[in-house]
Amino acid sequence: MSGSSEVDRLIELMAKLPGLGPVSARRAVLMLIRKKTLLMGPLASAMADVEATVRECAICSNITTHQFCDICRNPKRDQSQLCVLESVADLWAMERGAIFKGRYFVLGGVLSALDGVTPESLRIPKLVEQVVEGEISEVILALNATMDGQTTAHYIADQLGAATKLTSLAQGVPIGGELNYLDDGTIAAALNARKAF
Amino acid sequence: MSGSSEVDRLIELMAKLPGLGPVSARRAVLMLIRKKTLLMGPLASAMADVEATVRECAICSNITTHQFCDICRNPKRDQSQLCVLESVADLWAMERGAIFKGRYFVLGGVLSALDGVTPESLRIPKLVEQVVEGEISEVILALNATMDGQTTAHYIADQLGAATKLTSLAQGVPIGGELNYLDDGTIAAALNARKAF
Repeated sequence: MSGSSEVDRLIELMAKLPGLGPVSARRAVLMLIRKKTLLMGPLASAMADVEATVRECAICSNITTHQFCDICRNPKRDQSQLCVLESVADLWAMERGAIFKGRYFVLGGVLSALDGVTPESLRIPKLVEQVVEGEISEVILALNATMDGQTTAHYIADQLGAATKLTSLAQGVPIGGELNYLDDGTIAAALNARKAF
Repeated sequence: MSGSSEVDRLIELMAKLPGLGPVSARRAVLMLIRKKTLLMGPLASAMADVEATVRECAICSNITTHQFCDICRNPKRDQSQLCVLESVADLWAMERGAIFKGRYFVLGGVLSALDGVTPESLRIPKLVEQVVEGEISEVILALNATMDGQTTAHYIADQLGAATKLTSLAQGVPIGGELNYLDDGTIAAALNARKAF
């Protein structure tokens, strides 16, 4: 199409990225070619770098290019707090908040009998072991507020028993949220958890 | 942010692509990591390939990875028709139509006194030479229907004089267009160029 099979192939691959279609992939490739040394070269080598070295952190399952991720290796992070999350994307979202200073444990999914996701495939026994053996004083269950997420949270709570203090994220009206646009469940949760003004 | 400086750098570079922002760049990088061997590896090497070999076709200025682009090298393309375009993106758009079977000449811009774009920087003398010396029976001026595009078309027509037959793209109602949403200029052009039903 473009008069060069290599360029065509690059467009085709770029179009597979989420958020890009054939039209925006073409636009992106033209921009890459225009900014060959400034953007295309660095991007190609960054991608090859990550492709060659990326793996799961041996402790928390976050994405890393070393054996342990930067968060697990950081001695300044509070070792006594452990935040349990569904996915790496959730971990990144939590880190953007920049409030939590403890460590993480990424499950990589939620329990689902239909999809054959068992506690073992989510490494829940390893989580229990880590909590029981480590000096963890609080486990924050930051799973998504979906049916499967909450089922998984209850299962983990059950497994951990009285081994540590268990907390979960507060539920209520999001910042900037308008009552008019909120679902009934959120309004009910916010009302039940109301606090002194 | 992600717990790995290499991954952070990749997200940062991806966010510079048109159509991607910080959020969709994160999503794209997570997808790339998930599809490491299927997508990330091929994409990184395709990008490095194109970066190393991409250049302008010596004849038409299209993007190519060889000295001449696939279109100029194709003996089946009609050598007697030459289509003059503003940009490589326009050439790709024309090729998608798959109607035109001649060759191209990409100016790489339009004349602009303000931006200091001269006929020489657009290689217009080279175009005139190619038309006069070659066996070109028709030059199609497919420049954008903007003020600068039309000024450039008039300048080229002036330079070519009676050397060859000159044509330009038809102006009128686009396929699927509704009169209600068209500008006055387009409606006037379509009315002036009306044809027997």
